[in-house]
Amino acid sequence: MITFFTYPGPNSRKAQIMLEESGEAYRTQTIDITKGEQFDPKYLEISPNNKIPAIVDEGPQEKVAVFETGAILIYLAEKSGRLLPPSGAARADTLAWLFWGTGALGATLPQLHHYADLAQRIPGTVERFGTEAVRLFNVLERRLSQREFICGEYSIADIPSFCSTAGWLGRVKQLSDGKLGDTPSIDRWLKAVAQRPAVQRVG
Amino acid sequence: MITFFTYPGPNSRKAQIMLEESGEAYRTQTIDITKGEQFDPKYLEISPNNKIPAIVDEGPQEKVAVFETGAILIYLAEKSGRLLPPSGAARADTLAWLFWGTGALGATLPQLHHYADLAQRIPGTVERFGTEAVRLFNVLERRLSQREFICGEYSIADIPSFCSTAGWLGRVKQLSDGKLGDTPSIDRWLKAVAQRPAVQRVG
Ligand SMILES: N[C@@H](CCC(=O)N[C@@H](CS)C(=O)NCC(=O)O)C(=O)O
Ligand SMILES: N[C@@H](CCC(=O)N[C@@H](CS)C(=O)NCC(=O)O)C(=O)O
Repeated sequence: MITFFTYPGPNSRKAQIMLEESGEAYRTQTIDITKGEQFDPKYLEISPNNKIPAIVDEGPQEKVAVFETGAILIYLAEKSGRLLPPSGAARADTLAWLFWGTGALGATLPQLHHYADLAQRIPGTVERFGTEAVRLFNVLERRLSQREFICGEYSIADIPSFCSTAGWLGRVKQLSDGKLGDTPSIDRWLKAVAQRPAVQRVG
Repeated sequence: MITFFTYPGPNSRKAQIMLEESGEAYRTQTIDITKGEQFDPKYLEISPNNKIPAIVDEGPQEKVAVFETGAILIYLAEKSGRLLPPSGAARADTLAWLFWGTGALGATLPQLHHYADLAQRIPGTVERFGTEAVRLFNVLERRLSQREFICGEYSIADIPSFCSTAGWLGRVKQLSDGKLGDTPSIDRWLKAVAQRPAVQRVG
């Protein structure tokens, strides 16, 4: 049985979509990051970087603890045999775009959010992270104009980028002052991923 | 035969160390990112996010292109059977720390570099990314005080964090104004990794 350590937010949503896609049974345990529960020494043994999401899979032979959304997705994909090709070019491509989604896109948008919406506006910062966000969404639009999903078939590569894009595309367009134009391929893909039963169950 | 697309810098170094560790034969092709060669449409077919490093592995059956340093490391580890446990808790832990190294640490330090050393100093930005860098190095110090390498035995999890830490620990200490103290475990680990023949060959 898998325990899912979570608190509402975009990274937890990525992990929970994959829990649903994998078909694995899991129970949810909230870690209230607004109360500092992520610093509890017992939780740090599971998630040493003091972040949610994390999972613990208590198997018959060993207990597997996983933190970092990308690693959770790979773990669940390999355990269930779903959404990650087992070898070859298709596997390499899926992993490349998984890192792109959690790393490139996933690192830029929170910085933009911080400077555009949470902190005091500091000249230059919104432009810096906004320009990078526009570049990244253009990379994604080009990619999706040639493929139904990011790596052809739906895979773990779609999940982080889907959550980030669903939450952020509109705001980035607004901030970009016309520099990010129409994104018909992204829009089509967002609809297709949103219709998956696993995604709908997470909400 | 593997072709390694590169330009001198920290991310290329991570990939090249793993090329050396893997024992795979490779040849190097420079992509001059100061001249915009990363935007060449032929290169974008290999690296659609217009970044180095990338590799192309021309096998008998198919051609595998991989971008994103983390995905390159996994690809080479799985191809060579080196530095990534094949299953279970040890594999999950190695992947978690790989994402931590490329994502958390690897995303923070370039922002700190930008605001501390390249761009005009903007009040608050060096503090923001510097505070996060101190937190991350404290997480790493705690981890390495309990293990010889990040996941016990040397693995692909060490490579990105090693390159980032070797390049950045001193500067972060300097910027932290005493907030990042001594790091005896990190110092020991840096020396151990630097002594590996593969690391010495890359320089
Ligand atoms: N790179 C991590 C990021 C996770 C993350 O940023 N989690 C935030 C909430 S969305 C968190 O736990 N914050 C608590 C803290 O930083 O103390 C991942 O992909 O899992
Ligand atoms: N997330 C990428 C980052 C790679 C990266 O930032 N590469 C830089 C050089 S260190 C680059 O190619 N810059 C060229 C550009 O941005 O146009 C990875 O880990 O491979």
